[in-house]
Parts: sequence; structure tokens; C-alpha cells
Amino acid sequence: MKRQITLAVLLLLCISSFSQQALWGGQNIISPEINSDNTVTFSLYAPNAAKVQVTGDFLPAKKTDTPYGKQDIPGLIDLKAGKDGLWKYTTPEPLKPELYSYSFIVDEFKTTDPNNVYLIRDVASVTNIFLVGGGHAGLYRVNEVPHGTVSRRWYYSPGLNMTRRLTIYTPAGYETSKKNYPVLYLLHGMGGDEEAWIALGRTAQILDNLIAQGKATPMIVVMPNGNVSQEAAPGESAQGLYKPGMQLPKTMEGSMETSFPDVVKFIDSEYRTVAKKSGRAIAGLSMGGFHSLHISKQYPDMFDYIGLFSAAIIQNKDARSPIYANFEGKLKIQFSKSPKLYWIGIGKADFLYKANEDYRKLLDKNGYKYTYYESEEGHIWKNWRIYLSEFVPLLFK
Amino acid sequence: MKRQITLAVLLLLCISSFSQQALWGGQNIISPEINSDNTVTFSLYAPNAAKVQVTGDFLPAKKTDTPYGKQDIPGLIDLKAGKDGLWKYTTPEPLKPELYSYSFIVDEFKTTDPNNVYLIRDVASVTNIFLVGGGHAGLYRVNEVPHGTVSRRWYYSPGLNMTRRLTIYTPAGYETSKKNYPVLYLLHGMGGDEEAWIALGRTAQILDNLIAQGKATPMIVVMPNGNVSQEAAPGESAQGLYKPGMQLPKTMEGSMETSFPDVVKFIDSEYRTVAKKSGRAIAGLSMGGFHSLHISKQYPDMFDYIGLFSAAIIQNKDARSPIYANFEGKLKIQFSKSPKLYWIGIGKADFLYKANEDYRKLLDKNGYKYTYYESEEGHIWKNWRIYLSEFVPLLFK
Repeated sequence: MKRQITLAVLLLLCISSFSQQALWGGQNIISPEINSDNTVTFSLYAPNAAKVQVTGDFLPAKKTDTPYGKQDIPGLIDLKAGKDGLWKYTTPEPLKPELYSYSFIVDEFKTTDPNNVYLIRDVASVTNIFLVGGGHAGLYRVNEVPHGTVSRRWYYSPGLNMTRRLTIYTPAGYETSKKNYPVLYLLHGMGGDEEAWIALGRTAQILDNLIAQGKATPMIVVMPNGNVSQEAAPGESAQGLYKPGMQLPKTMEGSMETSFPDVVKFIDSEYRTVAKKSGRAIAGLSMGGFHSLHISKQYPDMFDYIGLFSAAIIQNKDARSPIYANFEGKLKIQFSKSPKLYWIGIGKADFLYKANEDYRKLLDKNGYKYTYYESEEGHIWKNWRIYLSEFVPLLFK
Repeated sequence: MKRQITLAVLLLLCISSFSQQALWGGQNIISPEINSDNTVTFSLYAPNAAKVQVTGDFLPAKKTDTPYGKQDIPGLIDLKAGKDGLWKYTTPEPLKPELYSYSFIVDEFKTTDPNNVYLIRDVASVTNIFLVGGGHAGLYRVNEVPHGTVSRRWYYSPGLNMTRRLTIYTPAGYETSKKNYPVLYLLHGMGGDEEAWIALGRTAQILDNLIAQGKATPMIVVMPNGNVSQEAAPGESAQGLYKPGMQLPKTMEGSMETSFPDVVKFIDSEYRTVAKKSGRAIAGLSMGGFHSLHISKQYPDMFDYIGLFSAAIIQNKDARSPIYANFEGKLKIQFSKSPKLYWIGIGKADFLYKANEDYRKLLDKNGYKYTYYESEEGHIWKNWRIYLSEFVPLLFK
């Protein structure tokens, strides 16, 4: 202990190589910057670029021709070159509270923002995010409230003969209380996995905040992997760091639904749950809505609360699983047992709007009660976060 | 349920907008590709670029002039333009087993690889990673072995009067066994946080694999946040999505060390631990090594196993905390109580090599026993993963 170094020298060392190894190339730029009036400024240092653009869901979507027909694609906006190679763009209007994602396009090359470390993977794409707080987006912030625990845990599924990964949220106080808690099973869409709801869906923040506000009953949230051919999210299984894709060999063919009681049994045996119908909810987005529909119908005594978020209520006529047989008969049994909440949410621009409308007609025709929530826009995470925020306060009351 | 759609149409829908929202712009390129001989091919689609380069720690570091003197900086290699705008580079030699990080540079603009979703944040930089398996890097892979649980949990620190976030690894079987487990407290370096060891350090993979191979005793690993002015990692506290930096207002001034028993008390009260000296280890890298040194010396009955990884054994002479007073006297007390393992690891090229050499001389002079591990290279995660892999099998035997 012979060396005496002042704090200044120490900090200088820190900045150079004391740091972990990747600080070089760092730039002293804040991007994006949420201005006090909620306009947002994007900045990028690119002295050799001829053109820099930004795209993201903060821009109005445009109907665009694609190989799959007209689709809503976010627009592009040019950044303006300043001296010193710093490009900038400020939105002309304040942005509404929301969690947004965006990318830069430098001379036609789509890239992440090197000054923003907050990134989210959605299937095979990684984009930067930013949060304009207030309104419903206040629920997506980490606030000064008690925080639940988020665990990644593995369970064995006898039905699939696989060991599989789960994300589990337990509410603040779970570990020290002696109480039993109700459970929401929350399912992702095609291309997603057990990371989707916690990352893109802001589940932990929404639950922490709703519980702290007294608007939601403290509950456990279980986010399983809905791809039966996968043990875990990309990068989290022995498959290694492969490139994720949408098309999985086994999907929506019945085995996710058939094996679902394995998840419930595991949770009921390992956590202090309210292990009965009135203590269980199931909800999912898109493919996860399809799963929630079929699971809750197949096991009519398992869930008292069902949420279909932009549900893929479409039939795979190649699927031979008995899960899909006798659809209307099973629905009749399910509704004869009076589930406490059957909740349907869909956006007006969703390509599944018609499928959901047809399904509601079927429910109406039979006098089956449900709660309907119709939003703007389409098949996007913005809607799924809103649906979760609307759905959760209705549970376990 | 009137719509009957074949699987082909269903999948087409999936690829278009059924997907989560970000699939557009996806490219059918695998990058990087680990070839069968362990050469690695990088590919980037950039039809308008004049020059594309790759940099990363798979390239030999070069002594480079920087504002902070000569530093080891990874080199740059040009990719070769092919037709169709696809740029490629294949390493001339197979790469040794390792977890590597890299970035592309497109016309002087440093960027991530849009075809690789695996990214790691190190302080304020985000880079892509890839893994060449085999050798010691086999420990960094997710293998077909029982997996522990990784939890992010909050605890209250009376010493800091703050609620703070921890990452906790519990080994496979913890939840269902009735046993008590020893605990390794594992501390990060300056600029890091409670995410550093689990992400950059591959702690869960190393522990799962060493335990499955029978080389390590099943143990709990607790990864706290060593920045006393922070509740949690960037983006995980009420500070919101701010840009992380190296310089924090309070660091290495004693309060991390003084308040550390709060963490131990929390873990001992909430987990089935071996709550005594022989059941506790503490180790850390860089600043975390400094913390481990001072905490274990301050509380000589708390830890039987101490690991200093590239430890920042330097004194902040402005710090007034009693933690740093009577250094040699406290060390004498600590060693008089015969800790079972005092382990020091450092790289030959580390800028802290001399400080560690001086410290070893002090230990030698006093006849204090320690285990010394000297590696190649310097102050990098590659070394810290190796040190963890070497240290863990020595614990709790």
C-alpha cells in the first residue's frame, strides 16, 4: 500500500483503462433527449454520412407496399447535419406518453443509436427504446414504489419431456409474508419467448405500479415459453447464440395447450398460490391469445379470468390435436361454469380485427358474457401494454 | 370460428404483421458464423458503404496513443465488398475458445451488427458478442445440465437508507432441497452494476457447469450493486433511462464497505444459507477487488474465502472513512484468524499489476498465505471469467 493516488488521478485512471474494457469510442452525446415540453431530440455523430434518418413508432405509420400486401410501416425523417458532423432532429410536436422504439438509418444502413444503451429485442430485430412519461406510460416507469422480484427459473414438463425456462414475477413482500397469492399466466406471441412480456411488455413495472397504487391485487405473474420446440429464449438454451426466427417447427398444433397443466402444477407446488380457479388468470397476446382461448376452454375449471389480447383466433386446419376438436361444445361447458372475467382487447387496425369480430358474434349468439376493449392502431406492443394495464386491475377482486 | 386458414397462410401472416412489430428490415444473413474449423466469418449488408471494418477483442490489441497515454486497443480489419452489397471477412486462423465482443465500422461510423441479436452493455457501450466453444469457454455455454435460478430482487440497506437491487443466483435444486447453502458475494468494477457479472461474467453458466461437473460445491451467488449512490443498474431505478457513465458521486469512499453487512444480513435472513464464516466467500474485480479486500479485512469473522481479481489496490487519500484506517493492523487480525483462501489473480499487462505486486510483497513480508494466479493480458472480462472459473472450485471444500 505504498502508492498514494489522489482522487483525481484515480478517476482519470477509471476513465482510461480502469473502466471495463469497452469505454473507448464512447461519445459525449445524449440521445434521445426528452425535452421539458416532451418534444424529443435525436442526435448522431456521423461526420462522413451523406444522409441520416430516423424511423420508429413515434412517427405516424404509412400504408406501404410490401411483399405481403399493404402494411402499416413507420415513416422516415431526415436528421439535419450540423457542423462537427453532429446530426439532429427534434420532433415538431410533443410526443404523447409512451414507450417508443426507433432506429437510425445512415446512408441507407439501418443501425442502433450508439449513445443509447437501452435496447430491446423483438424476435430477430434489436431497436433502441425511450420513454415519454406521464399518462398510461407512467405505469411503464420504474417508480419509487416497492418492487417485486423477477426470476428466471427452469421447470420440468412431463407432457413435453423437456426442461424449460420461465420468467416469474413475485410481488413485493411475497418472500416475507405468509400469504398465498393468485397467479396470472401471461403468454407471448409468435416469435416471442419467456423474455417478451418482461422486456417489451414492461410487466414488472406495470405490476409494481398498479399494486402500489392499490389498483391491483398483489399477484404472481408467470411468463412461460409458448414455443413447444424450444427449451428457452434464444441464447438461453444449449442451442447457443443462434439467429432467432419466426418459424418454429411446432407451433399452434396443440401441445402447448395440452402440456399447460405442467406449468400450473409446477407453480402451485413451488409457490404459495391460491391454487384454485378463483386464484388463476390466463392471458396472452396474438398466438398467446390463441393459447389462452384454447387452454381455458380445455380446462374449464382451471381459470376464472381469461384475457385475449389481439388474439390469433384462427384455425390451423392441419392441426390434429384433440385440443381443437368440439370447439363450440367446449366453449359451452366453459361458459356454463361462469368464468368471472372473459376479456377481449383488439385494435381497430389489427389484421385480426375481423377474426375477433367473428368470435364476438359467436359469443353474442350464445349469450356468453365477455368484456370488450377496443383500441386504436393494430398488432403492436403499445396496445399489449395498455391491455395488460387494463386487464390486471380487474383480476382477483 | 368460420375462417379456415391453412398452415401456409398462417405462417405467411406470421411473417408479415402477425409478428411482433419489428421484423421489417430483417435480413437473411447469419453473422457472425462460427465455421467448423473455428474460423469466424463476419457479414454485413451495406450496399452504399465505401468501407466496412470490424473491430473486437478477437483481434490482437495494439499499443495506441490516447489522451490517457498508450493503451491496448483492438485493431481494425477491412471487410471485402462482394456483389449485392454484402461485405465479408473471415479470420485467417481459427479463434481460440472464448466469448468475444465486436463492432462494425461503416464509413467510420461504429455500429452494432444488425444480424446478431446478442449484445452486452459494458458501462456506456453496447457491443455484439459471439462464443467460440471448447476449452475454458465451454463453461460459458448454456449446456444440457441442471440450471440454477437467477433473480433480481430488492433489499433495504439501513446503512445507506436505500432500497437497492441485487442479482441472486441459487443453484439447481435450491428450491426443492431442504439444505443450507454457502454464499459467494461477487462484486463488480467501476462503471459496472448488479448486471455486470451475470451478463459479461457469464456467472450463471459458469456455476451451472462447474456444479454439474462436480467441480464446485452448490452455492448461492449474490451480485450486489457496488455504487453506493445508485439504487440499481441504469434503467432499473426511478432515475429512468439515463446515459450511464463511469463517474459516480460516491465511490471507494468507504460506505460500500461499511454497509456491506446489510447485504449479508438480508441474504442470511431470506435464504437457507450456511450463515457463518466457513460458508461465506467474497470476491470482486477491479473496484470490487478493492471492496473485497477492505470488507474482508474490516469484518475478519465474516468471510473464509477472499478473491481479488485485478483488484484496484490503490488508496484514495481523500477518503476519510475509518474503513481505510490502520490498514496493516487490520490485515494482521484478518490473517491471524487464518482465512481458508486468500486468492489473488492479475494479468501481466494489467495497469494494476504493479499495485498487486506491491501488495503481494506486503503479504509475503508478513508471512500471510495467499494463492496467486497470473494470467496473460490485462484488465479485461476475458480474465475475470477465467478467474471466476478458477476461484469457484476452491470454495467451501
